[in-house]
Amino acid sequence: MKSYRLVPGRGLAGLTLHDRDEPEPGRGQVVVRIRANSLGFRDLRVLSGDYPLPITPGVVPGCEGVGEVVAVGADVTRVAPGDRVAATVFPRWLDGPFRREDAAQLGTMIDGVLTEYALLSEDGVVRLPEHLSYEEAAALPLAAVTAWNSLTSGGAPHAGETVLTLGSGAVSLFVLLFAKLAGARVIVTTSGPAKAERLRALGADEVIDYRQNPVWWKEVHALTDGRGADRVVDATGPLEQSLRSVAAGGEVAFVGYWLSGAEGAAPVDPATLFMAGSVLRRIATGSRAHFLELNRAVEAHRLRPVIDRVFPFEQVPDALAYCGSGGGFGKVIISHA
Amino acid sequence: MKSYRLVPGRGLAGLTLHDRDEPEPGRGQVVVRIRANSLGFRDLRVLSGDYPLPITPGVVPGCEGVGEVVAVGADVTRVAPGDRVAATVFPRWLDGPFRREDAAQLGTMIDGVLTEYALLSEDGVVRLPEHLSYEEAAALPLAAVTAWNSLTSGGAPHAGETVLTLGSGAVSLFVLLFAKLAGARVIVTTSGPAKAERLRALGADEVIDYRQNPVWWKEVHALTDGRGADRVVDATGPLEQSLRSVAAGGEVAFVGYWLSGAEGAAPVDPATLFMAGSVLRRIATGSRAHFLELNRAVEAHRLRPVIDRVFPFEQVPDALAYCGSGGGFGKVIISHA
Amino acid sequence: MKSYRLVPGRGLAGLTLHDRDEPEPGRGQVVVRIRANSLGFRDLRVLSGDYPLPITPGVVPGCEGVGEVVAVGADVTRVAPGDRVAATVFPRWLDGPFRREDAAQLGTMIDGVLTEYALLSEDGVVRLPEHLSYEEAAALPLAAVTAWNSLTSGGAPHAGETVLTLGSGAVSLFVLLFAKLAGARVIVTTSGPAKAERLRALGADEVIDYRQNPVWWKEVHALTDGRGADRVVDATGPLEQSLRSVAAGGEVAFVGYWLSGAEGAAPVDPATLFMAGSVLRRIATGSRAHFLELNRAVEAHRLRPVIDRVFPFEQVPDALAYCGSGGGFGKVIISHA
Amino acid sequence: MKSYRLVPGRGLAGLTLHDRDEPEPGRGQVVVRIRANSLGFRDLRVLSGDYPLPITPGVVPGCEGVGEVVAVGADVTRVAPGDRVAATVFPRWLDGPFRREDAAQLGTMIDGVLTEYALLSEDGVVRLPEHLSYEEAAALPLAAVTAWNSLTSGGAPHAGETVLTLGSGAVSLFVLLFAKLAGARVIVTTSGPAKAERLRALGADEVIDYRQNPVWWKEVHALTDGRGADRVVDATGPLEQSLRSVAAGGEVAFVGYWLSGAEGAAPVDPATLFMAGSVLRRIATGSRAHFLELNRAVEAHRLRPVIDRVFPFEQVPDALAYCGSGGGFGKVIISHA
Repeated sequence: MKSYRLVPGRGLAGLTLHDRDEPEPGRGQVVVRIRANSLGFRDLRVLSGDYPLPITPGVVPGCEGVGEVVAVGADVTRVAPGDRVAATVFPRWLDGPFRREDAAQLGTMIDGVLTEYALLSEDGVVRLPEHLSYEEAAALPLAAVTAWNSLTSGGAPHAGETVLTLGSGAVSLFVLLFAKLAGARVIVTTSGPAKAERLRALGADEVIDYRQNPVWWKEVHALTDGRGADRVVDATGPLEQSLRSVAAGGEVAFVGYWLSGAEGAAPVDPATLFMAGSVLRRIATGSRAHFLELNRAVEAHRLRPVIDRVFPFEQVPDALAYCGSGGGFGKVIISHA
Repeated sequence: MKSYRLVPGRGLAGLTLHDRDEPEPGRGQVVVRIRANSLGFRDLRVLSGDYPLPITPGVVPGCEGVGEVVAVGADVTRVAPGDRVAATVFPRWLDGPFRREDAAQLGTMIDGVLTEYALLSEDGVVRLPEHLSYEEAAALPLAAVTAWNSLTSGGAPHAGETVLTLGSGAVSLFVLLFAKLAGARVIVTTSGPAKAERLRALGADEVIDYRQNPVWWKEVHALTDGRGADRVVDATGPLEQSLRSVAAGGEVAFVGYWLSGAEGAAPVDPATLFMAGSVLRRIATGSRAHFLELNRAVEAHRLRPVIDRVFPFEQVPDALAYCGSGGGFGKVIISHA
Repeated sequence: MKSYRLVPGRGLAGLTLHDRDEPEPGRGQVVVRIRANSLGFRDLRVLSGDYPLPITPGVVPGCEGVGEVVAVGADVTRVAPGDRVAATVFPRWLDGPFRREDAAQLGTMIDGVLTEYALLSEDGVVRLPEHLSYEEAAALPLAAVTAWNSLTSGGAPHAGETVLTLGSGAVSLFVLLFAKLAGARVIVTTSGPAKAERLRALGADEVIDYRQNPVWWKEVHALTDGRGADRVVDATGPLEQSLRSVAAGGEVAFVGYWLSGAEGAAPVDPATLFMAGSVLRRIATGSRAHFLELNRAVEAHRLRPVIDRVFPFEQVPDALAYCGSGGGFGKVIISHA
Repeated sequence: MKSYRLVPGRGLAGLTLHDRDEPEPGRGQVVVRIRANSLGFRDLRVLSGDYPLPITPGVVPGCEGVGEVVAVGADVTRVAPGDRVAATVFPRWLDGPFRREDAAQLGTMIDGVLTEYALLSEDGVVRLPEHLSYEEAAALPLAAVTAWNSLTSGGAPHAGETVLTLGSGAVSLFVLLFAKLAGARVIVTTSGPAKAERLRALGADEVIDYRQNPVWWKEVHALTDGRGADRVVDATGPLEQSLRSVAAGGEVAFVGYWLSGAEGAAPVDPATLFMAGSVLRRIATGSRAHFLELNRAVEAHRLRPVIDRVFPFEQVPDALAYCGSGGGFGKVIISHA
């Protein structure tokens, strides 16, 4: 079978395709024939070596993959051959708060899913919503789980609350979709009328163009009778403006700030932190339990992720280059058709 | 001005209309010209003397009333003359859990709102959603607050969760409406195809006819792949079946059980309590904070309460007799047109 | 190696000692040389067949066992040979709420720990507090985990709150010890001055003799200025009195009611449920996370469980007969010395 | 009667003593003969005009005062003449999260308690723990409420958890005392062996001298097996080190950072925020409910606040000058003997 391998710190040049033997499942393990993956900025960071977690040289990259269970080891009870499943990004983080002892992450510390057959623990896979194709479902493991965690770890938003989400990255799009399901009023920041149009079509109640409103937190207050947003999900920064946007008693869910560039990474005045709402919650993907919960919501509402482009498995480097060029809208998918 | 008075224990005969002087607001108080009320089983229980809280003889009855602020006392900052407001059932229960020291309740321990002008504390009124008429808004103070408390005190339901609510009483109808806003899948029990039709029109995903399915908890499991409902709101009983309907880890919100009749009041086997979900939460109306939250949801979604019939202020006894006859669908409203 | 086996429904006659081969650890598994167990009413129920969960015929009984890791399978990272560990009662319930798919329980559905060598998953063992002997640590897996779950699932009690716990069974004694660590004022019910004395020596602030005060919930109110207890942990019943003992806004943690006898199992009036505090929480042992948390508390405070009697491994039937005779104080321990 | 008045922006020169008429209680109000106050950095900030909230010119300063109820207005039910009470800093913040509409604060927006007789709402006073003198109880309204809120808003700490608190300011000393009541292990930072000694005498398990360990967050990890502290209460900064001190899944309670000087106010790198624990919670004093809860703990454990020095009412300026000189240990008290 074919499998990518990764030498970190070399960018795309560090990514190569190899032949390997198909894996055999041990006790409690399953083999999944991968049918689709998705990619994003995280993968570019891992390739460049600019990632805050250790990367095992030669590791199979990719943390987002879905496919079909083709073999199960002894004592496996959660799934059976033929089941359509997704791999979870942190296979040992099952429920509750993140624990350091469960920090093993697909595609960095341990082998990931940019491969034809992946060897996974049964705890590390979840069944897919039935109405989704593999290509659609491949959008879920990182972005949707992060969005769900962001919106629910401080308690699910109440109907009628205002949720602000920043930009049209993959996490932000899922925040928009999930917050609308929960009955929230959703404000999204973006650049340009074309993206604004698409965000409105996805349900955004208000769109703020941050090029026209560079001090957009003031616009958030104007749109909320001066209260500010009850929840802010910040997956891009600048954090300073998120903090100024949130209502008294509100919460900022702070997603992977290290992903953002120079502008977003400006240091924050503690006084701004002190005057902002009540809680800043750090969000790093999510648990198996988060994934199971969001799958129920996706299935009940027959929600479909937003897909940008689909590349074949052999063109992972092209797909990553495309990710790096920015400007897309929705997830970049790899299909093993 | 005209005002009803109540001598408990005599039923409708204990209710009489009197002339009184219009009240003057003291410090921190407001006078509200009542424009609409609503009525229900609670009022019948208060009249009959079959109510678990003390009733002050001669008290003005009624805990559900809305109207216009016509005068404010010293130091009032929350509202101003001209504001459209609702009285809160427990004027001193502002936020957080119920405390016994804040137990004063309109229409039983202290004067209620079946009157032309009510003297209320400024903490004991909330502004009305703009799109609602007084008659519509009068449906909120008891039933909608109870429904909101039932659905949110254990955390707002997640999109995709299953909520079961019993019957088509006023609380249950609000549970249905609010749970749909939150993205839940909603199952409702009822009797007969006419009510089932109306419930479906309001958004119910599944309706169980408890006459055709007297052991309806089994039907709940059949409709949820054997899991049971994640949340049950039980405002009618029998509690035993609610407990059997709830999923592992789920919650039963238990609303005013003493309201129900002989059938609903059957004793419960502790083993059934032990085997049922994780939490039984007792719900008694709710706080000012609950009312503020639900008003935001009602306003954001331009939700309209379900109204059954409207009676003029002079016909409160007829309206109560109508309530006692059962079989309605939605709130019974008093208009001071 | 020697191992007990169980045929349910025959009582002590269904329990026999067999020779087996020592187990080999599979991937993710560990072999633990069991050094101590503990026993209790649950085991008697399992033997008699009067247990609400399915029991696999021929299963190795016992859900409470501690020992030394002597071998580990592939991919094991949590523990190493030589580590002193306890088995967790539900090996797959790691964190968060209980899920039905993780319901496998030691000693009923799957092999337990009344054996010389146990084969366990690495997720299903936790390290022991250093200051405890094996005999002391064997008291923890069922009773201490249940007590910790009871006291913390609704949020840890605040210093100054009143905790009521019923009787001097193993769970209740741990509730007393843990509640005192948390700064609570603790009331315990018991029978007779000798037990009352021991409970006071363990830190109980108030002891109520339920023989002298059969309507002891009134005594609870007398001891709390009429408020009632903020938390009640009911591991024996009668639940009716627990419900009458709890303060407005308080919580009753309801532990394994099916364990209690005829008296405790009296049906409960829904009106009593409605008038009682705010939450009835059903408690069934607890998760790996609960065990890890309590171990930190036990270790930080060098807490020592209360041990009643120690029997050798060969005398498990005698130990169980002793349990059945009632009247002990503390855990009954099996030592593999 | 005598009363201080304040013109902000002039420092101590803006503070003058005046004669006024004794107040009369309106409906829902009480008059309290103030018997003791306490003072601190907040008051110096208010005087200097360097305070983030609006200050009414001529306002009576002081937000910490206790005394005896000497008169009550109509409808007052919570207290009676003769009751020993404390004023709450935010008289309208009764329970639940802080709301902007309840932001009126004693001594800045509305008249405070550096006066012989204070006119307060009945909701804005709480009864004192019986065992405390007025001078001792005067230490509670600001520092103890802030400490209690810091430790409990994210859920009370569990016995065995590690709490880190910074310095020996008034809030930090209460955090130390309250965390020990809750069974936590407490680490305190301080300067010099004399303070370290006093902190240990108050129960601190570990004291870190931040002069000897300027990068003290590393010492926190060394003292916690590399985990970090489960809770950090930061009332002094630098926030950067607090963030580096907290465990995965832990919480930093961030108290009034604007109080700290240049060093503490260094901007924070978003990456540090992202890598730190899970929650940063902003704490601004607390509600009436917090005060009621802590009073129960203080009373149950007969806790006594740490008092530094007592000044007579006429020497408030000297007391403030003493506060400004720094270096004290415990609260500075004003006595109206």
